[in-house]
Amino acid sequence: MNEDPIARLALLLARLPGVGEKTAQRLAFHVLKSPPEYARELAAALLALEHDVRLCSRCCNLTAQDPCNVCRDPQRDGRLLCVVESVPDLLAVERTREFRGRYHVLHGALSPLEGIGPDQLKLKELLARLGTGPQAASDAGDAEHTGVQEIIIATDPTVEGEATALYIARLVKPLGLRVTRIAQGMPMGGTLEFTDQVTLARALAGRRELQG
Amino acid sequence: MNEDPIARLALLLARLPGVGEKTAQRLAFHVLKSPPEYARELAAALLALEHDVRLCSRCCNLTAQDPCNVCRDPQRDGRLLCVVESVPDLLAVERTREFRGRYHVLHGALSPLEGIGPDQLKLKELLARLGTGPQAASDAGDAEHTGVQEIIIATDPTVEGEATALYIARLVKPLGLRVTRIAQGMPMGGTLEFTDQVTLARALAGRRELQG
Repeated sequence: MNEDPIARLALLLARLPGVGEKTAQRLAFHVLKSPPEYARELAAALLALEHDVRLCSRCCNLTAQDPCNVCRDPQRDGRLLCVVESVPDLLAVERTREFRGRYHVLHGALSPLEGIGPDQLKLKELLARLGTGPQAASDAGDAEHTGVQEIIIATDPTVEGEATALYIARLVKPLGLRVTRIAQGMPMGGTLEFTDQVTLARALAGRRELQG
Repeated sequence: MNEDPIARLALLLARLPGVGEKTAQRLAFHVLKSPPEYARELAAALLALEHDVRLCSRCCNLTAQDPCNVCRDPQRDGRLLCVVESVPDLLAVERTREFRGRYHVLHGALSPLEGIGPDQLKLKELLARLGTGPQAASDAGDAEHTGVQEIIIATDPTVEGEATALYIARLVKPLGLRVTRIAQGMPMGGTLEFTDQVTLARALAGRRELQG
């Protein structure tokens, strides 16, 4: 390790995504100029991650308390289950304040090239929640795990996300649930001129009746 | 404090310059996905700052060891003294690998509007090194503190940096030392078309004979 504490901190910060060598140095000096409480709090928060964060046993969300906030909340509509690739995706859906159902976090998307197959995703856990799969029997008494009527697949509109969505749709079909996919189309504020052709084609294909 | 460890870390990270709420969240999840050693090392580096970093008693650089690396290095040319506003500026000069003299870090620039006058800068320390000022007598036996022949003022080419440069030039003049200012002109790779008029004017004013 580097003997210079500032350089050492900068080196570690430079490992963060989107943080280059210069930015890391700037951040290190910022911490140095801040009151020492800041560095102490940040250090404590970093150390807390390892000890306090685990997977929610129901939805595989990351949480300090099991089950997680969403799964514990009795106001949530257990009939709707939104399947997302990652916890940041879950938080993105939460920020819309439009979704009042529950989640299931896959922790990835199918990507044969990267060696990510169905076993690397939290699909067993998904099936268990839906009352099938190997874990279903032991959880049968738990009302939280049943009652799902619609699965909204909110994986990314990428090759991997699409493949994952299709895979889940086929997996869940035998259960007789409604399976939906989030819409694809023009983003708000976008301009047709600068929209890529695939997005525009999907926006056309997904067109809906306009109520006049 | 927030009860969610990830949200708490993201909140603290969002206080860093140039890090917004979304970036902070992305960074927090990156740390979470990294091996736990990373969070531990980062926490240790943060805590080390407070305990291990002090000012070099000679040049006011930030350092774990007093005097700092540059001041301890016998290969450095003690005749050249480069005056910079901050430690990041010192590191920027070091990165050029062109300067083999020593430094003096002012820790700021004159800015009456922000209440930064000469007393807020490390000017007393500068004068003491040059063999004048109140601390000079006690340091008289130390050869490191004398022998300076040229002071290169490398403050920023901003209103504050320029004012500081002028102030130091006047302060040091009575000592009979050579006082120089880093050149101002076009940055490498710049285009005349998109260069601001002040820079271009200075580039013209600072023109030098071209050896044909």
